[in-house]
Amino acid sequence: MNFRTYCLLASLLLPGAGTLAQDNTAPQRDPIPTAQPRQVILIIGDGMDEQQITIARNYLRGAAGQLLLDQMPLRSAVQIQTTQDNAEGKPLYVADSANTASSMATGTITSRGRISTSAGVDRDLTTIAELASAAGLRTGIVSTASVTDATPAAFAAHISLRLCEDSATMEDIRYHDISLGECKTDLKANGGNGSIAEQLAESAVDVILGGGSAHFTPIAEGETISTLDLARRNGYQVVTNAAELAQAAPDKKLLGLFAAGTMPVRLQGENGRAAEDPKRSWLNQLHPYLGSVTLPAPMTCVPNPAFSSVPTLRQMTEAALAHLGNDNDKGFFLMIESASIDKQSHERKPCGSIGELEQLEEALNSALAFARTHPHTLIMVTADHSQAAQLVPYESLFAAFPIPVYTPGKLARIRTPEGGLMAVNYATNNFVMEEHTGAAVPLFSNSEGVGLIPPFIQQPQIFTITRDYLGL
Amino acid sequence: MNFRTYCLLASLLLPGAGTLAQDNTAPQRDPIPTAQPRQVILIIGDGMDEQQITIARNYLRGAAGQLLLDQMPLRSAVQIQTTQDNAEGKPLYVADSANTASSMATGTITSRGRISTSAGVDRDLTTIAELASAAGLRTGIVSTASVTDATPAAFAAHISLRLCEDSATMEDIRYHDISLGECKTDLKANGGNGSIAEQLAESAVDVILGGGSAHFTPIAEGETISTLDLARRNGYQVVTNAAELAQAAPDKKLLGLFAAGTMPVRLQGENGRAAEDPKRSWLNQLHPYLGSVTLPAPMTCVPNPAFSSVPTLRQMTEAALAHLGNDNDKGFFLMIESASIDKQSHERKPCGSIGELEQLEEALNSALAFARTHPHTLIMVTADHSQAAQLVPYESLFAAFPIPVYTPGKLARIRTPEGGLMAVNYATNNFVMEEHTGAAVPLFSNSEGVGLIPPFIQQPQIFTITRDYLGL
Repeated sequence: MNFRTYCLLASLLLPGAGTLAQDNTAPQRDPIPTAQPRQVILIIGDGMDEQQITIARNYLRGAAGQLLLDQMPLRSAVQIQTTQDNAEGKPLYVADSANTASSMATGTITSRGRISTSAGVDRDLTTIAELASAAGLRTGIVSTASVTDATPAAFAAHISLRLCEDSATMEDIRYHDISLGECKTDLKANGGNGSIAEQLAESAVDVILGGGSAHFTPIAEGETISTLDLARRNGYQVVTNAAELAQAAPDKKLLGLFAAGTMPVRLQGENGRAAEDPKRSWLNQLHPYLGSVTLPAPMTCVPNPAFSSVPTLRQMTEAALAHLGNDNDKGFFLMIESASIDKQSHERKPCGSIGELEQLEEALNSALAFARTHPHTLIMVTADHSQAAQLVPYESLFAAFPIPVYTPGKLARIRTPEGGLMAVNYATNNFVMEEHTGAAVPLFSNSEGVGLIPPFIQQPQIFTITRDYLGL
Repeated sequence: MNFRTYCLLASLLLPGAGTLAQDNTAPQRDPIPTAQPRQVILIIGDGMDEQQITIARNYLRGAAGQLLLDQMPLRSAVQIQTTQDNAEGKPLYVADSANTASSMATGTITSRGRISTSAGVDRDLTTIAELASAAGLRTGIVSTASVTDATPAAFAAHISLRLCEDSATMEDIRYHDISLGECKTDLKANGGNGSIAEQLAESAVDVILGGGSAHFTPIAEGETISTLDLARRNGYQVVTNAAELAQAAPDKKLLGLFAAGTMPVRLQGENGRAAEDPKRSWLNQLHPYLGSVTLPAPMTCVPNPAFSSVPTLRQMTEAALAHLGNDNDKGFFLMIESASIDKQSHERKPCGSIGELEQLEEALNSALAFARTHPHTLIMVTADHSQAAQLVPYESLFAAFPIPVYTPGKLARIRTPEGGLMAVNYATNNFVMEEHTGAAVPLFSNSEGVGLIPPFIQQPQIFTITRDYLGL
């Protein structure tokens, strides 16, 4: 039995990994009457690891404060798994958003870059949204990224490479003249499903809200119309701003595209500042223990003006819940992604990540309000993988030593509303974008998850927990 | 009300912070009959954050494996709090082991470097071990560090600066001719309690096991005998190796000192290797996007020969449990520290941290075995603060770009027993020791903690939970 087969079997055979513990005493839940509609709301904070949560908590609520996440009745940890892209499937220890979203969407571990297709053999993997639709439940996907980005895509599309977001990128993906791959085998002409945007346009998903309108302008493969018109032909009403979103017909499929790509974030550093390099004196450049080093000046987080031009994640969440919950006796599956915790961290912008985590909190608040009036609503909040940001001492632990002590990476020093100074370090690489990290991530749930979700799970179990809760 | 007062009140008034949640449905526990002995075993993995746990899990059990920690029936998160060293007590966002151990030992938030004394005003704070002793319960402290190191010290000593470990350091602490402070006000001659070693020697703690014999050789203040003889005068039998430990009299106070300072760790990199700098070609030094960069060669973790000269943490734990549990109808409090997860991480030695986390797992296994035969034993496992190590991609997420992508810090690339390659990054500073980080840390408990410990707590609540469980 190879490693990947083992992983798959383990995830199938161990729906409650915590029950391995000899003194696991998690309470058992009563079964839900099958006649009542059941809902699962899966909220994904992209890259929302314990460092990101603590940084946001310190800023938004203070060092002694609590986020809404902290008040959830269940906390678990999620083991992230990734394989090499071959049939043997040796483990890799750090994931990307494509393979982790695929784990959650399909219950199957795959390789980096893949959207709900299997490692090595490139088989389409059935997603939880597809299972739900087939059973007559409604489905929704909401993201502050482009809806064609890896996390939302994995719930409704199948493609070998996440970068093939639209029909113009299938044969050669270029970034500043550098080729990043292609998806020729996924062309419809070659028996594939087409690009991510085309798959979304032709999907059965009832509500799709987020950014990414630019990916719907290219002509759909084999058609003479744009991908957006393909979506319209497939029954979608299309909205592009908050006012249109508020007036969308409740009984028609809904595609909302509110930005060309990723949606603007709520907060940014003053003058757009990101983390910066410490400035080393001439002497210090001769030897790191000589001379002096000037750390970046403290930064204030300020509102991003562009944010007001788009609906908030709360507004998108509430619109999706209204649409999915309207006159629905079967239930639904809704995935909500707060995408830019990760994206802003890649760009070393802690204010952006903080504001985006605040958006997640607001979406969670809306989901909890929905659950209060709709029993049998399981809410899970989790991250897909860990990220680069580290909360480090504002003053070094070794400040008593008469030498300059500073990060070799980039540093942001943020003024917090409670009057503190918080330092955030980004130092996983020298590139224009930071790396992900590999730590397990937290998972929170409302009371519906208590007794259902053990304290430690494998990421594909998010699929099985959802499937079983919805009775699919 | 200033911030620190607020923190203190919050920690006192909110013994179950999770109960703030409107749908917190954690089950309630029956009260324990007061006639039966109650035990609390608090296991602290120093610096054992989610990154360290995942790195150790991948190495020890594989990417799909489970640690014993993962099988515990309760998982919570702990908010770490630290204040400036003044009465106003503005928050600091990154802690050290002294103030965090003081939080757990006394229920009071203090400033970095302090051992169970209050920020600014330097008041002695009563520890859980002192409360337990006063009520007739036994107490024990076990650590793989020197027993005078910050974490063990905070449970039995009170001093303004953690570095005053012995009577020779009270007036001037020097490190390579650099003055790191003093504890003159803590001299007995000035009405203080003396150094940490002297306070341990004169304490009521029943079992003290770990390293640090060097701190017991100086003459005790105001005495003509060594601090070790002071301990003997105070009723301690002294043991210095595993054989003596196994033969210790069960009815006499026990001081075991098995190394001059920190005890040797179980695993190390081949030839003592730590994380290393990537090697940059001449061209790359001209510009980071030019030339080539050679990452450190993969490293194998190998046994540290010195480890066999000392008792394991499991052996110390079992000796302490035997001693504390022997003919005891009142119960006990035992703190067990796996210290070098942190210390090896400061030194950028991932193999050392992994082996030390394995020691913690073995101690936990012994504690769970004890709890099976001794009902009303609450086991909590937690960390004091987060640490610098980051599990990063072995191959960069951006390897498709034709430029060298590498960490600005130091990197170890470890061969795992399952045949994988795992990269660990250390990049919080340029000093000889890494910084701590500020993320919340996990807390695990056995079934005794279910219903007692909410999913999110403040670190001082570890004190109140222990105190209440023991009925103190």
